Amino acid sequence: MIPRIALTPGEPAGIGPDITLAIAQQAWDAELVAICDPQLMQERAELLGLEVEIQVINSPLGEPSPHQPGTLKVYPINLTAPCKPGQLNPSNASYVLYTLHAAVDACIAGRCNAMVTAPVQKSVINDAGIPFSGHTELLAEDTDTHRVVMMLASKDMRVALATTHLPLRDVADAINADMLEDTLNILHRDLQSKFGLANPKIAVLGLNPHAGEGGHMGREELDIIIPVLEKLRASGMQLDGPLPADTAFNPKVLSNCDAVLAIYHDQGLPTLKYASFGEAVNVTLGLPIIRTSVDHGTALDLAGSGKADSGSLKSALQMAIDMSQSTQTS
Amino acid sequence: MIPRIALTPGEPAGIGPDITLAIAQQAWDAELVAICDPQLMQERAELLGLEVEIQVINSPLGEPSPHQPGTLKVYPINLTAPCKPGQLNPSNASYVLYTLHAAVDACIAGRCNAMVTAPVQKSVINDAGIPFSGHTELLAEDTDTHRVVMMLASKDMRVALATTHLPLRDVADAINADMLEDTLNILHRDLQSKFGLANPKIAVLGLNPHAGEGGHMGREELDIIIPVLEKLRASGMQLDGPLPADTAFNPKVLSNCDAVLAIYHDQGLPTLKYASFGEAVNVTLGLPIIRTSVDHGTALDLAGSGKADSGSLKSALQMAIDMSQSTQTS
Repeated sequence: MIPRIALTPGEPAGIGPDITLAIAQQAWDAELVAICDPQLMQERAELLGLEVEIQVINSPLGEPSPHQPGTLKVYPINLTAPCKPGQLNPSNASYVLYTLHAAVDACIAGRCNAMVTAPVQKSVINDAGIPFSGHTELLAEDTDTHRVVMMLASKDMRVALATTHLPLRDVADAINADMLEDTLNILHRDLQSKFGLANPKIAVLGLNPHAGEGGHMGREELDIIIPVLEKLRASGMQLDGPLPADTAFNPKVLSNCDAVLAIYHDQGLPTLKYASFGEAVNVTLGLPIIRTSVDHGTALDLAGSGKADSGSLKSALQMAIDMSQSTQTS
Repeated sequence: MIPRIALTPGEPAGIGPDITLAIAQQAWDAELVAICDPQLMQERAELLGLEVEIQVINSPLGEPSPHQPGTLKVYPINLTAPCKPGQLNPSNASYVLYTLHAAVDACIAGRCNAMVTAPVQKSVINDAGIPFSGHTELLAEDTDTHRVVMMLASKDMRVALATTHLPLRDVADAINADMLEDTLNILHRDLQSKFGLANPKIAVLGLNPHAGEGGHMGREELDIIIPVLEKLRASGMQLDGPLPADTAFNPKVLSNCDAVLAIYHDQGLPTLKYASFGEAVNVTLGLPIIRTSVDHGTALDLAGSGKADSGSLKSALQMAIDMSQSTQTS
């Protein structure tokens, strides 16, 4: 089947429109629908010297058909104010949020199979007086989801996080049995339902160096992590660990697991990003929809210059297509 | 010049003797002196089917000459009790420590240029009633050194640690201006004196994810790390950071620095070990002598089997040779 993928170019003054136009130049085994201002895209294409036929959607879409290079279907939402590349304008903050809400709605309604997001600029949305802490939180709220799990994935490995953007001194107290069990359940279930893995294997890292060395270097492994793993193993999940983080990222462990669960941000992401050469994709697990994202910022200084790298958006789109197909067949 | 390198095979029941014999089979641009029981080495060589001529040192050594494959000079220290591969015996704990003290003495006296250590078994030394927390602490005590810095190095990168084996919940409180300044001074000075880098560049990671994001995710960067970096930059040191750990390990940053200072164990070592494919070398900085080490344990089950991998000891020896030569020429 041909999936239909919603693309949100995000912040209009950033490189989101540029990289969306760039990936529209190649063929995809999916129908792409950009949710954004069609005039913005037309102007940016001209600035970049790209020949792209902007096809504004003005009637219900039928069966998805594969993307044709040099075209871009746009579900139109209009900018509030004109946009100059590189120049942030709080007037367009609500525009950016509307594009995201529209993409979520399209996925929930089943009109699209997945959504792929280019970067937004959190600060300008906050400057507009709108409380906003990121894509992930907005998606959780729009879909009434209690807990989501952030996972970064490349060709070689997948790394999910038990905690994300916390000061390091708050990490140890943020770990408890309930949240760890919820996180592992979401990861296990989404590896099945969105990645087509019937019986996924997860390698779980310890919180402490050397996974606590039997309690000599911290007790959270003994008191929290090991009991949770034992409980979930008894329910049939395949869980390895808790493993020392510094030896878990080796070919033997990685080839024998479908994902690594790191306990915190800087325990898992440095190696994933080192190994993925900037092609990592951010996947939000736990949502009732499929959502992938680039793993970079708005790069305001590169907008309109032709120097933006669309590699991460390509990877995110390809993963969304693959996940859409796994979901259909599983 | 030809350096003379002291090798300590460490725990006699482990793979230390095996890998020492293995590296004696090849040529080295240095004179190797193993500090251990000659009969142990003879017996292990026979068990492994290796032809090695054990040359017991019984008179003062003259000028160093390059190692001859198939021979091994041994500075003799006798086992207390007979040793069977794989079987720990607390009676030999004091033997292991004597070999280390002798190697330190030889380096301090200038008879050897560096020492390279194979693994010891901490638990059996403690079982013998001897307080011992590791090679590094023994070396610091033997050389009256207040602070040492652990660095792991491979061909591609060097990662030093500001804190080492602490429970994660204690890391944030362990960071203060004095220790960070001491650590950076040691790292800077040893990169100069032991690695021949006249003006070393160091990339310093933040403590928190995204290096604290300007205080939004922890304040240690603003309150401690940035002021220390500014002070040391004013004294002429080349310091980059504090950098977010998840984007610091990229080719652009790595090619522009001589070492990365990670703030804690699992922030720096997973990527270093992933990138080094098991060939990382542990270097102790801050000592008045050169010391490198393998980065693995005693592997008791492999002792005498012929299956031990000597790759890490080879890398540690090569690095000790390189460092000895840099020290001579700097």
